[in-house]
Amino acid sequence: MTHEIAVIPGDGIGQEVTPAAVEVLEALEPEFEFVDADAGDAVKEETGEALPQETYDLAASADATLFGAAGNTAADVILPLREAVESFVNVRPAKAYPGVDAVRPETDLVFLRENTEGVYAGHEDRLTQDVSTLTRVVTESASERLAEFACDYVAGDDHDGFSIVHKANVMRETDGLFRDTVKGVADEHGVETDQVLMDAFATRVCLDPEQFDVVVCPNLAGDVLSDLAAGLVGGLGLLPSANIGPDRALFEPVHGTAPDIAGEGVANPAATIVSAAMLLEYLGYDEASDRVHDAVEATLADGPRTPDLGGDASTEDVTAAIIDRL
Amino acid sequence: MTHEIAVIPGDGIGQEVTPAAVEVLEALEPEFEFVDADAGDAVKEETGEALPQETYDLAASADATLFGAAGNTAADVILPLREAVESFVNVRPAKAYPGVDAVRPETDLVFLRENTEGVYAGHEDRLTQDVSTLTRVVTESASERLAEFACDYVAGDDHDGFSIVHKANVMRETDGLFRDTVKGVADEHGVETDQVLMDAFATRVCLDPEQFDVVVCPNLAGDVLSDLAAGLVGGLGLLPSANIGPDRALFEPVHGTAPDIAGEGVANPAATIVSAAMLLEYLGYDEASDRVHDAVEATLADGPRTPDLGGDASTEDVTAAIIDRL
Ligand SMILES: CC(C)[C@H](C(=O)O)[C@@H](O)C(=O)O
Ligand SMILES: CC(C)[C@H](C(=O)O)[C@@H](O)C(=O)O
Repeated sequence: MTHEIAVIPGDGIGQEVTPAAVEVLEALEPEFEFVDADAGDAVKEETGEALPQETYDLAASADATLFGAAGNTAADVILPLREAVESFVNVRPAKAYPGVDAVRPETDLVFLRENTEGVYAGHEDRLTQDVSTLTRVVTESASERLAEFACDYVAGDDHDGFSIVHKANVMRETDGLFRDTVKGVADEHGVETDQVLMDAFATRVCLDPEQFDVVVCPNLAGDVLSDLAAGLVGGLGLLPSANIGPDRALFEPVHGTAPDIAGEGVANPAATIVSAAMLLEYLGYDEASDRVHDAVEATLADGPRTPDLGGDASTEDVTAAIIDRL
Repeated sequence: MTHEIAVIPGDGIGQEVTPAAVEVLEALEPEFEFVDADAGDAVKEETGEALPQETYDLAASADATLFGAAGNTAADVILPLREAVESFVNVRPAKAYPGVDAVRPETDLVFLRENTEGVYAGHEDRLTQDVSTLTRVVTESASERLAEFACDYVAGDDHDGFSIVHKANVMRETDGLFRDTVKGVADEHGVETDQVLMDAFATRVCLDPEQFDVVVCPNLAGDVLSDLAAGLVGGLGLLPSANIGPDRALFEPVHGTAPDIAGEGVANPAATIVSAAMLLEYLGYDEASDRVHDAVEATLADGPRTPDLGGDASTEDVTAAIIDRL
């Protein structure tokens, strides 16, 4: 069966790293049909729309989407795209690779970030000249769905359970509902959990990342804390992510458009290639996915390396080296 | 003129570190009148109330309050106490001390955290069995007041300006109002600012904390990001804070009650003693404040040290050493 893969490079280095990841996929799975589409600052400049309807529709119908990055329009592109695939969880591994300089080389975490609500579902109002409000939304149903996913996730891989990160001492009703619902589902599945306040998590993960493994959290907490973990592993350049929905999914590196190096052909393609490995796994190609992970890991360890990792190789060099090692 | 200082040790190690800080103040400023009051888990167990009205009233009338820590009732104690002093900014320095093991020894940051609104002003509702909401509030007036304080702050000390940290790409109206208002005030004062998304800040501060100095942010962002900075400097044990209001203020270590070591007399008093130094500065005793800062720094560098810093000294030993060095 041929899978349709939407490919949306976007802006900046998205234009360089996305084709690199497609090359890797092509080297493995010729039964993918790739369909290209536009999104981001450049297409907005041309057409007035950062996310053309065709692109949205394509993501909403393809089996999986590979997205690169968008510039100033990032929120206008990525949030609707997550909706297009009806993504309810954003899976964000943050692992320090051997050979890569990391603040905390022991870091090996996976964030399972709620992907539909919290402040992101926020309805905003300017009530008066002085007062603005945002309505943060937390539902039992979204918390349950995330928790079911988390329970499957820790069962599939070899994890002891997960940590529920929240701020229910202040957001008592909303994060209380989140925490209690997630805990309830985990208890039903016999999955162990612990509960950590998001501020305490921020301190503790710096001091000793090994005390955490899988972290389940609301949308904004996941945004900030996974970026914190990115800092601990040496930057956003290596972080992949998967936006999983019931029938389709969207894969993207966590990094942005890197305008300072865009167009020079030296962007590190690792995060996007690992995102492609997550895509393979999502579509059931577990063995191919493992091969990509291993090839990236070997290449990060032994080179060639792009300038962000202290090397002088090009995106093409690194991509070729990864394909060589598949 | 005699200043009235409310002393609220609270629970756990609050009972040990708060008297230590009072000892330091007594060694310096005999014209303080200290008035003790209760708050926290223990008083709740006795009386049903975590924050007795007398304690609230005392904080609301004293010139300054020194607070230790509270256990499970922390939010019920500290949030009303911040209100009692009408605090509009929480000043949180996060500095790595020489001689203390830190993830990022170059860290030297000050967070100026909005202290009245955001999700903390949140009205919560359980709309249906499924749906809960929280109304996050951001006002122009609170943002302005914080920005005025920030401008004074960077002018007084030797700072180049400040960073405005926000998430206005998602919370466009509310954090947009925050960002634009703070920027507007800074521009009027000729204070330089830059703007950083809170997720990007989390990554960047790990990779290179020296790129930041003074950080101005909404309430929850300040909570999480200052705790992140605490992780970078080696833990909460050394972080002081000041909740500043127009006419009075509340000083507290950022750490909690540390139930694992409470009662053993080995809690590190440094964070509370530095909070007391901030109290001295607030009341105009700049020279005395400097002496406390210097004495703490010298003691952290040369010992004696409490067990959290690898030593085996008691709270009393460390306090005595600090007083010796005043
Ligand atoms: C661009 C922005 C809307 C987005 C988010 O906040 O989710 C980004 O920070 C991310 O984490 O993918
Ligand atoms: C106890 C809690 C309500 C409080 C906060 O969130 O402000 C604490 O985390 C802090 O930072 O002082």
